[in-house]
Amino acid sequence: MTLNPADSEFAKMLPQGALRPLEPRYLTEPRGKWTGQSGVLALPRDTDEVAELIRQAGKARVPVVPYGGGTGLVCGQIRPEGPAPLIISLEWMTAMRAVYPQENVLVAEAGAILADVQAAAIAADRLFPLSLAAEGSARIGGNLSTNAGGVNVLRYGNARDLCLGLEAVLPDGRIWHGLTRLRKDNTGYDLKNLLIGAEGTLGIITAAALKLSPIPAGFGTAMFVVPSADAALALLALARSELGEVVSAFELIHQQGLVFLDEVLPQVRQPFDDRPEWCVLVEVGLPKGQPPQAALERLFEVGLERGLTSDGVVAQSESQRMELWNLREHLPEANRLIGAVSSHDISLPLGVLSEFIARAGEIVAAFGPYRINCFGHLGDGNLHYNVFPPKGRAREDYANQAGAIAQAIHDLVQELDGSFSAEHGIGRMKTGELERYGDPVRLAAMRSIKAALDPVGIMNPGAILT
Amino acid sequence: MTLNPADSEFAKMLPQGALRPLEPRYLTEPRGKWTGQSGVLALPRDTDEVAELIRQAGKARVPVVPYGGGTGLVCGQIRPEGPAPLIISLEWMTAMRAVYPQENVLVAEAGAILADVQAAAIAADRLFPLSLAAEGSARIGGNLSTNAGGVNVLRYGNARDLCLGLEAVLPDGRIWHGLTRLRKDNTGYDLKNLLIGAEGTLGIITAAALKLSPIPAGFGTAMFVVPSADAALALLALARSELGEVVSAFELIHQQGLVFLDEVLPQVRQPFDDRPEWCVLVEVGLPKGQPPQAALERLFEVGLERGLTSDGVVAQSESQRMELWNLREHLPEANRLIGAVSSHDISLPLGVLSEFIARAGEIVAAFGPYRINCFGHLGDGNLHYNVFPPKGRAREDYANQAGAIAQAIHDLVQELDGSFSAEHGIGRMKTGELERYGDPVRLAAMRSIKAALDPVGIMNPGAILT
Repeated sequence: MTLNPADSEFAKMLPQGALRPLEPRYLTEPRGKWTGQSGVLALPRDTDEVAELIRQAGKARVPVVPYGGGTGLVCGQIRPEGPAPLIISLEWMTAMRAVYPQENVLVAEAGAILADVQAAAIAADRLFPLSLAAEGSARIGGNLSTNAGGVNVLRYGNARDLCLGLEAVLPDGRIWHGLTRLRKDNTGYDLKNLLIGAEGTLGIITAAALKLSPIPAGFGTAMFVVPSADAALALLALARSELGEVVSAFELIHQQGLVFLDEVLPQVRQPFDDRPEWCVLVEVGLPKGQPPQAALERLFEVGLERGLTSDGVVAQSESQRMELWNLREHLPEANRLIGAVSSHDISLPLGVLSEFIARAGEIVAAFGPYRINCFGHLGDGNLHYNVFPPKGRAREDYANQAGAIAQAIHDLVQELDGSFSAEHGIGRMKTGELERYGDPVRLAAMRSIKAALDPVGIMNPGAILT
Repeated sequence: MTLNPADSEFAKMLPQGALRPLEPRYLTEPRGKWTGQSGVLALPRDTDEVAELIRQAGKARVPVVPYGGGTGLVCGQIRPEGPAPLIISLEWMTAMRAVYPQENVLVAEAGAILADVQAAAIAADRLFPLSLAAEGSARIGGNLSTNAGGVNVLRYGNARDLCLGLEAVLPDGRIWHGLTRLRKDNTGYDLKNLLIGAEGTLGIITAAALKLSPIPAGFGTAMFVVPSADAALALLALARSELGEVVSAFELIHQQGLVFLDEVLPQVRQPFDDRPEWCVLVEVGLPKGQPPQAALERLFEVGLERGLTSDGVVAQSESQRMELWNLREHLPEANRLIGAVSSHDISLPLGVLSEFIARAGEIVAAFGPYRINCFGHLGDGNLHYNVFPPKGRAREDYANQAGAIAQAIHDLVQELDGSFSAEHGIGRMKTGELERYGDPVRLAAMRSIKAALDPVGIMNPGAILT
C-alpha cells in the first residue's frame, strides 16, 4: 500500500508538545552502514500520546519508525528508503512504574535504559538478569522488540523469558493493557510473545512487566583454557550436571580475539601469557553457604582429570572478576577496530557446533587468507563468527568477497539447522536472508499476521518483511 | 462463515486408511459436563496425512476438532454444537523422532503420551520436567496446545517454556517445518508461541522439539505446617533465596483437602494427625554433593525461627517421598468424589494471594455454608479454588448458585489483576469469561489473527473465540 511522507503538514496534526527537531543521531546506527532519512521526530510523554501519534500516522498513511536506544545492529531503527517516517522515540517514557519485590516483578516504561532497569532491581534487592554490551544506552522497549539475548541467557533466558506482560499501542492506535504480573495465564493467544521480537512492525511496546530473580549470594568467575570447542561443550555439560542452573555465563573465546586485543587494545589485561587457542569464561552465581570460588576450582579439577581443561584462573576478588569480564566485553570493540569483512550472529544446535567451526574455517580459507574470530555464548549455541582481512590489510580490499562469504557461511548454518540471526534480529539488513532461509509456510503466516494487525503497513515498514 | 457437517460423503474424500469408527470416548470429557456430537474420526499416521485431512476439511468447509489425550477440563476437545466435526486424533503419531542428550533436546510426535516422553528423556539420562496428574493419558500435542502447567512450573516453566520448536499443519493445510533445536533464533514473528496455547484453533501441532534438563542428583520432598498462606509465601521466598532455582515444587494445601481425603479416600496416608489449617509440600532437586534432606531440614529450622513453620516431615526415603506426592495427587480425586458446586483454576499476583483468600472466603460465605478447598501451585500464584456443598448435602441442591458464585469469584480475581484461567485454558467452557474479562484490544487482535490464519474458521470452531 502506498505510504505518504511525514512532512510539515502531517506534523501539524500531532501533539505539538511531543515534537522535537530531528537530530542526526536518530538517523545513524552503530556500524555506520546505513543512514536514515529525515522525517518528523516525536518524543511522546505517555502511552496516550503514543496512541495519538499512531492514530494520526494511520489516518495519514505515514510510516512509523519506533526508536529505542538506537543500538540495534541490523538497521531496524532507521529507514533509509521510502517516504520519510514519523520517528517515535520512547526516551521520555523512562519511569519505573512499580516494583513488587515479593512477586519478583518490576514494571518499567519502554524508554527506560537497560542499566537503569538493572539498577532499579538491585535497589529492591533483586536481579534483572538481562545484560549485554550496550546496556548503558539500550532501552528496554527495544530490548523486548528485538528479543535481546546477552551473556546471561544460559541461566535466565532471553528478553522474551524475562517479560511477563506488556502494554503496547497496536497499529490501529489502540492501547493493549497487558501488564500482567502473572506466571500463569492461559486465556487465549500469546500476543505478548508476538510483539516481542517483532521489531516494532506489529505495534509499539510502551511498558513491560519484567521478571526479577533473587540475587545470588556470591558470584564466581573463571577463565579456563580448553583444548577444543568440543571440550568446551563437554565442560559446559559437566558444569551443569555438577552445579545445576547456577551457571549463568559460559562464553567461548578464540585465540584470534585475544590477539586482536593485543593488537588494538593492549591495555586490556589478559590472564594467560600464551594466548590459548580456545578458552572459556565461566560465571556461576550461588546461594548462601556455597562459596563460588570453591565450586569453580572443583569444576577445573574435574575438567583437568577428564582432559577438558589445561590451565585456568579463578577470580579471587571482585576486581579480578571485573578484569575477566572486561576482557570479554572488549572483544567486540577490538573487532570493530580491526574491521570485519563479514560478521555473523549465528546459532547452531550444540551437537554440530564443532563441525560448523571446522567446516566454516575451510570455507573461509577457500576464499583467502582471512582471519576468523569466533566467540560467543556457547551455552546458547550462539556464535559471533566474524571474518577479518589478513594482518596489515584493510577490509576495503576484500569488500567484494563479503557477500559471497556471508552467503557461504549462512548456507552452512542452514544445512546444519542453525539460524542466521541468533540475537540481533532481522531489521532491514537481513530481510534477504529471511526470504532465502525462512520456512515459506511460516513466512506466509507472518505476512498474514502483519496484514491482519497492520493493514495499511505503517509500522516500521521494510523491517523483517519486505 | 457457514460450515458443513462431516458426513459420509465428506469421509469419502479422506485418506481411507486413517478413518476409524467413532467410539464414544471421543465424545466425552473427564467431568462429564458436555457431550460431543458424532462426526468423522481420523487417526492420521503421519504429518502429510494430517495435512491432507485439513486440506479436505478446508475445501468442504468442515469443522475440525483436534484430539489429544482427551484430558482437557474446559471442553476444548469436543464439539457439542454446530455441524458435526472431523475429529483428528493424533494417537497413531507417537514416535520419539530423535533424542539429542548433548543438546538437551527430544523431538516427539504430538500423539506421544506425556509419561512416555518423560520416560524417553529418562532413558537418555535427562529430565523432561512437565508433570501433571493426567500425564498417563495426556498427549504432548495437547499439552502444548493448552500450554499445560503442572507441579514443576516453578523451576522449569510451563509447556511453552519447555518447547523449542514445532512442526504443525496450519489451517490452509500447509506444513510448517519449525522443529528447531536452537536456544536463540531471532528471525521474525514467534509463530511457535502463537500455536502453543491456541487450543487447536490456529492449526494442529504434529511434533515438537522439547527442552530437556539434567536430572538432579538427589530429590528431597517435605511437608511443612505453616501458620497462614502469607507464611507459606514467605517460606517460599526464603527457600528460593537460600536454595536458588532448585525448588521445583511448592504446593499449598488447605485443611479442607485433607479432611476430604479422610472422608472419601481414607486409605491415603497423611503425615499429620491433626489436619493442619495450611501446609505446603516442598520439593527440591539438588546437584551432586548437596544432600536434599539436609537442605530441607535447614529450611525448616530457619522457617521455625522466623515463625513460618511449626511442624513438618522430611521424606527419608523414596517411598516416603511418593507417599507425600500421593497425598497431593489425590486431592483432585477427593474433590471429584465430594463434588464441587463451582471450581476455579485461577492465578493471582503473589502479593495479593492472601487478600484474595480472605475476601473470596467472605464472598462464598455470603452465599451459604459452603466448604472451600483452596490448594495449588503457590509458587506460580496458581490456586485451584473449589467450592463444595455443606457436609452431607449434594451439589445438585446448590447448582442454582454455581454461576453466581463463579462470577463473584472471577470478578474478585479480575479486580486483583489475576486470571480466571491459569492453566486449563478457555476451551468452550470459558469463552464467556474471556469476553467479560479479556482486554478488548487484545481480543480484537486475537480475532484478526484467527481470521487471517483460518479465514474459513475450520479449526476447532467455538473454542477460545466464539
